[in-house]
Amino acid sequence: MNASGASWVPGARSAGGEGKSEGFGLANLPMGAWSGEGRGARLGARIGDSILDLHRCVESGVLARLDRRIQDALAKPVLNDYLGLGSTAWAQARAELQRLLGETCGELRDAAVAKDALLPAWGITMRLPCDIGDYTDFYASIHHATNVGSMFRPTNPLMPNWKHLPVGYHGRASTVVASGAAVRRPMGQTVQADDGPPSLTACRLLDYELELGAVVGGQANEIGQRVGVAEAAQRIFGHVLLNDWSARDLQKWEYQPLGPFTAKNFITSISPWIVTSEALAPYRVPMPARGEGDPQPLEYLRWDDDFLLDVRLEVAISSAPMRERGVPAMVVSRSRGTDLWWSMNQMLAHHTVSGCRMRPGDLLGSGTISGAGEDERGCLLELTWRGTKPITLPDGTERKFLQDGDEVILRGWAVRDGLPKLSFGECRGIVLPVA
Amino acid sequence: MNASGASWVPGARSAGGEGKSEGFGLANLPMGAWSGEGRGARLGARIGDSILDLHRCVESGVLARLDRRIQDALAKPVLNDYLGLGSTAWAQARAELQRLLGETCGELRDAAVAKDALLPAWGITMRLPCDIGDYTDFYASIHHATNVGSMFRPTNPLMPNWKHLPVGYHGRASTVVASGAAVRRPMGQTVQADDGPPSLTACRLLDYELELGAVVGGQANEIGQRVGVAEAAQRIFGHVLLNDWSARDLQKWEYQPLGPFTAKNFITSISPWIVTSEALAPYRVPMPARGEGDPQPLEYLRWDDDFLLDVRLEVAISSAPMRERGVPAMVVSRSRGTDLWWSMNQMLAHHTVSGCRMRPGDLLGSGTISGAGEDERGCLLELTWRGTKPITLPDGTERKFLQDGDEVILRGWAVRDGLPKLSFGECRGIVLPVA
Repeated sequence: MNASGASWVPGARSAGGEGKSEGFGLANLPMGAWSGEGRGARLGARIGDSILDLHRCVESGVLARLDRRIQDALAKPVLNDYLGLGSTAWAQARAELQRLLGETCGELRDAAVAKDALLPAWGITMRLPCDIGDYTDFYASIHHATNVGSMFRPTNPLMPNWKHLPVGYHGRASTVVASGAAVRRPMGQTVQADDGPPSLTACRLLDYELELGAVVGGQANEIGQRVGVAEAAQRIFGHVLLNDWSARDLQKWEYQPLGPFTAKNFITSISPWIVTSEALAPYRVPMPARGEGDPQPLEYLRWDDDFLLDVRLEVAISSAPMRERGVPAMVVSRSRGTDLWWSMNQMLAHHTVSGCRMRPGDLLGSGTISGAGEDERGCLLELTWRGTKPITLPDGTERKFLQDGDEVILRGWAVRDGLPKLSFGECRGIVLPVA
Repeated sequence: MNASGASWVPGARSAGGEGKSEGFGLANLPMGAWSGEGRGARLGARIGDSILDLHRCVESGVLARLDRRIQDALAKPVLNDYLGLGSTAWAQARAELQRLLGETCGELRDAAVAKDALLPAWGITMRLPCDIGDYTDFYASIHHATNVGSMFRPTNPLMPNWKHLPVGYHGRASTVVASGAAVRRPMGQTVQADDGPPSLTACRLLDYELELGAVVGGQANEIGQRVGVAEAAQRIFGHVLLNDWSARDLQKWEYQPLGPFTAKNFITSISPWIVTSEALAPYRVPMPARGEGDPQPLEYLRWDDDFLLDVRLEVAISSAPMRERGVPAMVVSRSRGTDLWWSMNQMLAHHTVSGCRMRPGDLLGSGTISGAGEDERGCLLELTWRGTKPITLPDGTERKFLQDGDEVILRGWAVRDGLPKLSFGECRGIVLPVA
């Protein structure tokens, strides 16, 4: 094991990675899928400035110490088979990759395949890491739920169920895309008055939502079989950044009584590198104690070792004119994985309480992560308080909601004193005009 | 073409099929996936008393007149590739199968492969016809929406949006199962008082929902690309019966503000044979005119040739003691595909209004189909009016909601004067006690 060690790969000569590769050292080693350099869809691990082509590694025999089934899974174009192998196999593969990439190991470094298996990270295209069977979005930040609730129900911002269960809804798997995909402004039914009549218009209140995503792995539970909180922690392979793009005007008109639909299903972006649960283990923070008067979770949602992740999150926005002039995107809010009320493990456990089957490659979103502060609000609906407090970009223009040409960039780092930072990379999307 | 003709296959010597195979004549020819008789998962067409093994047909060259890509798709274990080929290919394949199975054609009948390619329908196991990428459930029967709404909001049963758009929500694809799969009574959070506190209990108010499902085919639209109503009709390969099993007590506590979740995602059953849109074309009924005072649909939901399907639906229930004594299941309600306010084409068009991608194998549910009459209510919540008007089964026991051991059977037939009936077969499930 070389979990905190240095690597011989450029940009990863310290455990945390350096320069533009900061956060991509050996302590991170996230996994994803990519194509480019004349190679079709393949799996890869990010290390420093490079991507390790896992298909090429398997093919060349560099990973021959791993079980054949692990090698076979790593040679696939998507992570689903690998996800299905479960946490023991994940740990074996990670340990072997860390050994091979560690500064004291020459096996891969000195092999003929090395220069072919390590590619510059900047020259390739990242893809969706897995085929997503089902995508579910939660609503697990109390600051977000309270802020949004208070806009629509001032006297009763949190529903009675909110502190008892992680509220969630089924999202749309077919429109989950990897960072970088364009975001077409949607059309939809919108109304001027609360009770209509509606008209078909371009969305006027386009928003982002800053979320963490969890990628499910392990053997699928049978229909009817529940997954406990501790077991859920074993089922979560890793985490990504997730932007749950939202059309607020469509949402307001359509969402009752069955929840958001066309307001959410037009696109959902995720960062392409899955930061593994194993890499994130040292960045766990115990669940905060519930406040006085707050209900304790029911037994099936309790686990003494349950945790949140100390991931520092930020949202940055740039307008098209800013990018033309080389003005960096402006960070508009910051929040943290520890701002969640429910853990991802609790979300997964609750998801299965009635017996729902979770398959390798399923995706869970945390819901918008907002902190307590006014500059910690993870979507424009909250940040501009429904458009009543616009923000001003460096180009002098105001934003209540997103305009065509705006780019939204989510960023994240796992942080802990004395440990290297782990980067989640970025989740980007530029808003295109309605088609 | 032999669409209304007789076949040489037993049970299909008249166009409508005979005896226990009534509705499975050459005019129907539904498609599905199956396994059994020592053969792995394969596609098949139902004809009379038999299943035509399409894999065997392709392998033996009997379908050599069809394009290679159609043959390849028919040799797969699931329908997805075939669904992706689109309506022209579907029509070619159907015409060729009808020709080969028609009474005047000896090509298949007299071929050596015939006795191997036609298997008794009773001896095999039906499977899910396709891998379901995403499943969406709608709420498109005005009688159902009004009945349910009036229980919870007596003064305002229909939300203002209901007559303007087909209300729907994303369901769970991983728990869609083929008819016959057992239905485990779910656990979940339930409350005695409206505002909690909740406890983890077995569902006490387990219900079925009688629905029609539509299976989507054709080339997936790109993200951001809308599908019009007329085009939607081309994208729907066919229809099934669908039981959206529902835990009413879980639903009541959890559903606000984001919609049903664990109350619905534990299981959804569909009938295994997809009755094709082409077979159903003669059973179309023009959309009824909107009533006075009702809004006209927005332009994107209008198509002059839009239609509902005259499918006669029924729900039958048997208790375990009834089955032990050989007492047939009791039909508890009947309704029709024409009881829908929105067409399946409108549902699909609305689904994509903001640009949602629809892939071959996606499934749409109509929502519970209830008619105007008290005996036309498609779920127990309505039929027993929240349990206040229990029904009595032939064994003398009362039902407010489902009990362990109850079997629910959905049945459907497309019907039109002068045309043969087309059977949808059955969608069955027996309730098992909580695990």
